[in-house]
Amino acid sequence: MAADPRFHPAGPPLTLAEAAAIAGGELRGGDPARSVATVGPLREAGPQAISFLDNRRYAAELEATAAAAVVLRGAFLDRVPAGTAAIVTDNPYLGFARIAARLHPRPAPRPGTHPTAFVDPAARIGDGCEIGPFAVIAAGAEVGPGCILGPHAVVGEGVVLGEDCRIGAHASLSHCIAGRGVVLLPGARIGQDGFGFAVGPGGRFETMPQLGRVMLGDFVEIGANSCIDRGSQGDTVIGPGTRIDNLVQIAHNVRTGHSCVIVAQVGISGSAILGHGVQLGGQAGVVGHVTLGDGAKAGAQAGITGDVPAGTDVLGSPALPARETRRMVAALKRLGTRDGSG
Amino acid sequence: MAADPRFHPAGPPLTLAEAAAIAGGELRGGDPARSVATVGPLREAGPQAISFLDNRRYAAELEATAAAAVVLRGAFLDRVPAGTAAIVTDNPYLGFARIAARLHPRPAPRPGTHPTAFVDPAARIGDGCEIGPFAVIAAGAEVGPGCILGPHAVVGEGVVLGEDCRIGAHASLSHCIAGRGVVLLPGARIGQDGFGFAVGPGGRFETMPQLGRVMLGDFVEIGANSCIDRGSQGDTVIGPGTRIDNLVQIAHNVRTGHSCVIVAQVGISGSAILGHGVQLGGQAGVVGHVTLGDGAKAGAQAGITGDVPAGTDVLGSPALPARETRRMVAALKRLGTRDGSG
Amino acid sequence: MAADPRFHPAGPPLTLAEAAAIAGGELRGGDPARSVATVGPLREAGPQAISFLDNRRYAAELEATAAAAVVLRGAFLDRVPAGTAAIVTDNPYLGFARIAARLHPRPAPRPGTHPTAFVDPAARIGDGCEIGPFAVIAAGAEVGPGCILGPHAVVGEGVVLGEDCRIGAHASLSHCIAGRGVVLLPGARIGQDGFGFAVGPGGRFETMPQLGRVMLGDFVEIGANSCIDRGSQGDTVIGPGTRIDNLVQIAHNVRTGHSCVIVAQVGISGSAILGHGVQLGGQAGVVGHVTLGDGAKAGAQAGITGDVPAGTDVLGSPALPARETRRMVAALKRLGTRDGSG
Repeated sequence: MAADPRFHPAGPPLTLAEAAAIAGGELRGGDPARSVATVGPLREAGPQAISFLDNRRYAAELEATAAAAVVLRGAFLDRVPAGTAAIVTDNPYLGFARIAARLHPRPAPRPGTHPTAFVDPAARIGDGCEIGPFAVIAAGAEVGPGCILGPHAVVGEGVVLGEDCRIGAHASLSHCIAGRGVVLLPGARIGQDGFGFAVGPGGRFETMPQLGRVMLGDFVEIGANSCIDRGSQGDTVIGPGTRIDNLVQIAHNVRTGHSCVIVAQVGISGSAILGHGVQLGGQAGVVGHVTLGDGAKAGAQAGITGDVPAGTDVLGSPALPARETRRMVAALKRLGTRDGSG
Repeated sequence: MAADPRFHPAGPPLTLAEAAAIAGGELRGGDPARSVATVGPLREAGPQAISFLDNRRYAAELEATAAAAVVLRGAFLDRVPAGTAAIVTDNPYLGFARIAARLHPRPAPRPGTHPTAFVDPAARIGDGCEIGPFAVIAAGAEVGPGCILGPHAVVGEGVVLGEDCRIGAHASLSHCIAGRGVVLLPGARIGQDGFGFAVGPGGRFETMPQLGRVMLGDFVEIGANSCIDRGSQGDTVIGPGTRIDNLVQIAHNVRTGHSCVIVAQVGISGSAILGHGVQLGGQAGVVGHVTLGDGAKAGAQAGITGDVPAGTDVLGSPALPARETRRMVAALKRLGTRDGSG
Repeated sequence: MAADPRFHPAGPPLTLAEAAAIAGGELRGGDPARSVATVGPLREAGPQAISFLDNRRYAAELEATAAAAVVLRGAFLDRVPAGTAAIVTDNPYLGFARIAARLHPRPAPRPGTHPTAFVDPAARIGDGCEIGPFAVIAAGAEVGPGCILGPHAVVGEGVVLGEDCRIGAHASLSHCIAGRGVVLLPGARIGQDGFGFAVGPGGRFETMPQLGRVMLGDFVEIGANSCIDRGSQGDTVIGPGTRIDNLVQIAHNVRTGHSCVIVAQVGISGSAILGHGVQLGGQAGVVGHVTLGDGAKAGAQAGITGDVPAGTDVLGSPALPARETRRMVAALKRLGTRDGSG
């Protein structure tokens, strides 16, 4: 099935020639003037749809597809069935993303403030914003032009959002300065108190005031129900273009570079520093006060307990360089076998 | 203490004979006409209450209970104290659940739309629904008869809910078709964008449009603050009767069979396929694009990195068949001891 | 940079002599009458600000600071630069917390109910409460004096909050009795159904009614998007002063002592018992029905599968006493090296 038009209204159709140009690819074996209206996975795409192949695992589905065209690498050309064109490129995922974004463009803001929303008189809202039902924009907040605030979104006192931000349903921001094009999915929590307290007399905890902010760089995207605490002193900083998945925890004073990728359920403890382009697999954890160099990568469920040099892949808990962890796991398997059979 | 009537109003009382019949058990050692009004744990149940014993760990509490009756297996009969009846069944947990549900029935909808709710004129709501304060039902949405929407629940554009669904406070749905009897606990996030992007020129991320839906089968239940992303192409599908605990992450294009059990904080990566009756322990993780066969089970914190055959139990991270992981852990313990003492 | 006054308005300034007294420390090398207005990290604190040094890792920053004074241990005195005073104490983190709390006091409630809030006529609200936009206080609920309810906070039917509680944006409570000074950060979920069901005929799940409550002791603090399910029978209990970080899962019937520390993304399964002062590192997991004695500590990502005696530190998954786990990891590293080089 193609994209459900209830949820994903189609834009104007494209010809295969246009699609190939958008994808930066070469059209092979199809009529350049043939029109396509939507996109879909190989198994489900019909003669109106473009699909793609990026993962060898699904190559068998290519041979059976009914898609009008498939974006793929040249190596798969001989498996394209008759009646289906190919758009050949070295980066089919990117090419397909661009075609899909043209056929199903992201909904634009529908300018206006819903009558049920509450906008404090001391807040400022830029032109062309869409403010949803029961949204709250508090005193002193500044919302840039072209933003969309979903139902129940809360923009706290003094918070600044750049232009073209999209704040999902029930997301909340406080103590935060966000750049342009920032996206928060529903239920994201930005700027609340970090987890800080001192042990006082008799073991009672006394709260450490959390006096920093959260700085979100341009085009940062943050997943549903993820949490980014504000700095205790100084700021928590998420670098431009960084993408954070759902249910991620980022503690106070963490700083990331640009273009990091932080997969779902990762936890990053206080004051950890991530360089540019750091990638953390799902459920990985990072202890506090460590530094991960540019381009460091951690596997899913890794437990990072110390600094990671730039460009290093780590795995396991405690995390070690990937090759070392793989050797340990292999040795352990042999050991289990020997001991069990002995 | 029995159930607090502020929160759990009692329905009409039952006789022990009725209770035994509801439980599908045999009443032993009590007056069939004796009346019970509530339920409680062994330690706290009084003479008005029925309790149960399902876990050997709590057998000592049986001997000291003041409950009117205890639902249990025959093996524990000789430890039931005087003055307490027994309801003997092979499935005491089920029997007790049914008695409890009769004594404290789930609150029925109180039909009506709260004056503060916002229902778009282009939405359709079935008969007998209870729509709570500040709930939002967007244009094109369809809410089946007998649904309860908690305060601040958001049913997005075009979303379909079958009859008798219960949507908790602050839960949000978009791009979703849900069957009947679906339950979302507070803060659950259904249908938002999946985590998908291509790497463009200069390493900049370009969003892959997420053009699918979430399909929730009949009687699916989803825990508080859990997240289910919609498909990127095609759909994310949760099979009928599947139960998902709190803070679970289910990525785009995941498909589960019926009656799966997914415990809190599990993460399932994109395009993973779960068969029927798959069980994942707390904090387990599943990488993308793998298949777990019918009845596969993973222990808590397991890290599943490949396909799991039907009926297989796995443990550990990386996850291996349970026996193998247990052998490895045992070998490792011996090794630690030897090396430490050597 | 010092605390941003948009978000953290400063209270009245202090002299260094006052600051030292508040910190319980001794002023060394500065003018007792010198005035300070704010606090900041060593790198950013200017001549109006007090900073602190608690972690040896940042000692080099001490030598370069421009702060008016630094709270620290005597051992670092000789690294304090000229122009900066020292406030010497054995607990610099506590001393600094107290100074910070004086210079930037927690905002007091601004008494009043926002016109958009919904307060059921059958709810009771104490004096001096601040009730935010779109907050909901349901029938039978009791909110103690001096509470702050953030925007969209939901206090369910019959819920009781003691005095001076602070409920963050979008947090929800049901089936809960909370003491005084309880803090919920945004999106916290308290009192929803636990994850309980029996297996009925044909493998269908039948819900076990969840008939207990959540009892939150005085000064309990609960992080953003964390979830605490109510008891199934009896109660889920969080002991006084316990601090729970973000995205934590606490299942039905868990009971904790006072002053526990539960770091982000921890999961505690049903009916587990924690003594006083138990500390669980980030992403740790606890299986159901086990007991952790007073002062037990688990490292990040630990997987606790059995009872832990009082005062014991455990690490790893499955968790073992810390020394044992460290020995195992060391042995495994040697093994990986040997096998890899053999």
